[in-house]
Amino acid sequence: MRNTAIGFGFREIQLPTFEGLDLFTTKSGQGIVDELYAFEDKGGRMMALRPEMTAQVMRFYIAEMSVQPKPLKLFYFGPCFRYENPQSGRFREFFQLGAEIIGSRTPETDAEVISLAVSTIESTGLKNCRLRIGYIGVLRSMLANAGILDSKISEGLHLLDKNDEKGFSAFASEAGISEEKVAEMLSLRGIGGGEEVLDRVPSDDAKKYLQELSGMMKKIGIRGFEFDLGIVRGLDYYSGMVFEIDAPNLGAEKQVCGGGSYSLIPAFGGEEVFTTGFALGFDRVLIALEKEEFEIQSPGLDAFIIPLGEEARESCMELVSRLRKSGFIVDFDLMRRNLSKNLKYASSAGAKTAIILGTKELSSGTATIRDMVTGDQKEVPLDSIRDFLGSNP
Amino acid sequence: MRNTAIGFGFREIQLPTFEGLDLFTTKSGQGIVDELYAFEDKGGRMMALRPEMTAQVMRFYIAEMSVQPKPLKLFYFGPCFRYENPQSGRFREFFQLGAEIIGSRTPETDAEVISLAVSTIESTGLKNCRLRIGYIGVLRSMLANAGILDSKISEGLHLLDKNDEKGFSAFASEAGISEEKVAEMLSLRGIGGGEEVLDRVPSDDAKKYLQELSGMMKKIGIRGFEFDLGIVRGLDYYSGMVFEIDAPNLGAEKQVCGGGSYSLIPAFGGEEVFTTGFALGFDRVLIALEKEEFEIQSPGLDAFIIPLGEEARESCMELVSRLRKSGFIVDFDLMRRNLSKNLKYASSAGAKTAIILGTKELSSGTATIRDMVTGDQKEVPLDSIRDFLGSNP
Repeated sequence: MRNTAIGFGFREIQLPTFEGLDLFTTKSGQGIVDELYAFEDKGGRMMALRPEMTAQVMRFYIAEMSVQPKPLKLFYFGPCFRYENPQSGRFREFFQLGAEIIGSRTPETDAEVISLAVSTIESTGLKNCRLRIGYIGVLRSMLANAGILDSKISEGLHLLDKNDEKGFSAFASEAGISEEKVAEMLSLRGIGGGEEVLDRVPSDDAKKYLQELSGMMKKIGIRGFEFDLGIVRGLDYYSGMVFEIDAPNLGAEKQVCGGGSYSLIPAFGGEEVFTTGFALGFDRVLIALEKEEFEIQSPGLDAFIIPLGEEARESCMELVSRLRKSGFIVDFDLMRRNLSKNLKYASSAGAKTAIILGTKELSSGTATIRDMVTGDQKEVPLDSIRDFLGSNP
Repeated sequence: MRNTAIGFGFREIQLPTFEGLDLFTTKSGQGIVDELYAFEDKGGRMMALRPEMTAQVMRFYIAEMSVQPKPLKLFYFGPCFRYENPQSGRFREFFQLGAEIIGSRTPETDAEVISLAVSTIESTGLKNCRLRIGYIGVLRSMLANAGILDSKISEGLHLLDKNDEKGFSAFASEAGISEEKVAEMLSLRGIGGGEEVLDRVPSDDAKKYLQELSGMMKKIGIRGFEFDLGIVRGLDYYSGMVFEIDAPNLGAEKQVCGGGSYSLIPAFGGEEVFTTGFALGFDRVLIALEKEEFEIQSPGLDAFIIPLGEEARESCMELVSRLRKSGFIVDFDLMRRNLSKNLKYASSAGAKTAIILGTKELSSGTATIRDMVTGDQKEVPLDSIRDFLGSNP
């Protein structure tokens, strides 16, 4: 995943594991405190283990990076913490990978961010996932045009995010929105599918934007995605494009990635700067890989070296050091065990070969190399072991 | 560092960022609570952000790994936390890399651990560091033979670790140790230097052990280390060989790595299993590299692609995607800027080349590739860009 992000021209940043509590409540509201690991430090300050990293990126940007050339392309990876009931795909400590492009607001910016999200997931080997792209700006404008104040819009969005259509209707009619308008808002949730559904988007700007984005996505080779105007992300700050990636085999907690475009920096005291970003649940990707019966390869050992007798021990250590310097993954007998116990250990450690150094072999300047899969043995001059291992994948 | 540890046949383990407070006090005593970030969770349990990871490795070993074939070779990397006054090389959040070999007790086990510590540090490019090897077992035996109880020995060792010779003498005479014996104990601190000083070690077992270790260290190519029988590590549990690596240009906080052999598992409820391990201060290594004016290379960009005009934009995105899939680090114009602004941005992003796609070039199926160092420009067929970049390091 890291290599993919670097290949896209993103730079990795490191962020602290905990910060002042107010950083997180500024972004997500006081409601988040119940889900946080918050604590008072010895200096009487309220701190919290980070529940996510976007707020930290914004703080870091304002404090250290605002004068750097735009766009800034940043990514991060690390543990986050939420105090919730643990269940499959919901851990109290979990790992997030995320990325943001700060300071640009074009369809290609959004395409680049979505493309990175898809590519990092594909780079793990996960086969089965589903990308949906929406545009929260449409619903936001409808609510604003119906006279709902900015500060109240989030309340309505939260109800829809929780699939509470009844609650949303009550909220809307209380705010004086006509039944017809409410029905129009709810009907956005039915707009899902291929590019053809964009004709039903009740905003020309959004439609044009999504069509342009769709063309770009195809050019960069991302296929099989769908539009879904019903996506309402739980967070208040998304303003334009939003997207989600699901791994269907995860069941109820199937979302592995979510993101969109927003302008969050003013909340932290900086000037307005457009940003598009995403966060990806690393643990969920791992669980989804397990469900696909993906085999995570351990690096194993290129060779396990076994000295027979005290005299061979120092020659063994010289050989180990020489092979490691040539880049081979090599281990050796640390416990002075006999040949058969050593072969058993080498096998359990996944060694491809065992190299046996005995007094007889040493006096002739050779070693016995045993293929741990076939059991074939071959005498090889000490000078040629490197070449032998290199040609023996 | 990671690749070096894998090359030595160590496996990486992930440990939680915080655990129950008593895990850390079991290992390090109640005194450590003052230095910890400890907090009560919503379930009323006392937790602490980890101050180091050895105690976690031991818990993990007992809970999950005790039946695995020995020796177990494990390494870890992650943030640790101490509530202390921040200063150069002492941060409240810092990164540790560490390794343990569990279940083996031979000089080659110790040689392997020391060798890994030295090799991981060398792999970063740090030139100037100093390895000292001691044997805390000598002093421990002298104190035990003089009738000091195990539970009191730590008290004496702590005084010496803090260079408090006067305090140690008072402690020893109070415990009824003769002046002659105290002088003998203190004289260990003068035994430092090359292999020749081992003749002065007042324990035949320790001397023989260190001589054997020394021979092995040379065979694996580690030179320039010294013996120092005065090393008394601050932690209670080391029992045999101990070692420290300093980066002299760090000043007062010059130790970058410390380790040794111990048997800690009984304290956590497991059976006695010998272990050799180390922990390495990653931040200190970085500071030492900075002092050596080491330049940390950023990956930069192989190419920055600039479309001129709307028609070129989609071709640009196709090319970007194709080059990234071939493994190149590639970025492109996200903000629809003009050529000169794009070239300026490409330069600030460390791009080696800029690829310019204009209408004229596209109709002839070519692009202009500009060398960002020399400014030379060359027209290259679109199909040959991959080869051109590959041959243009």
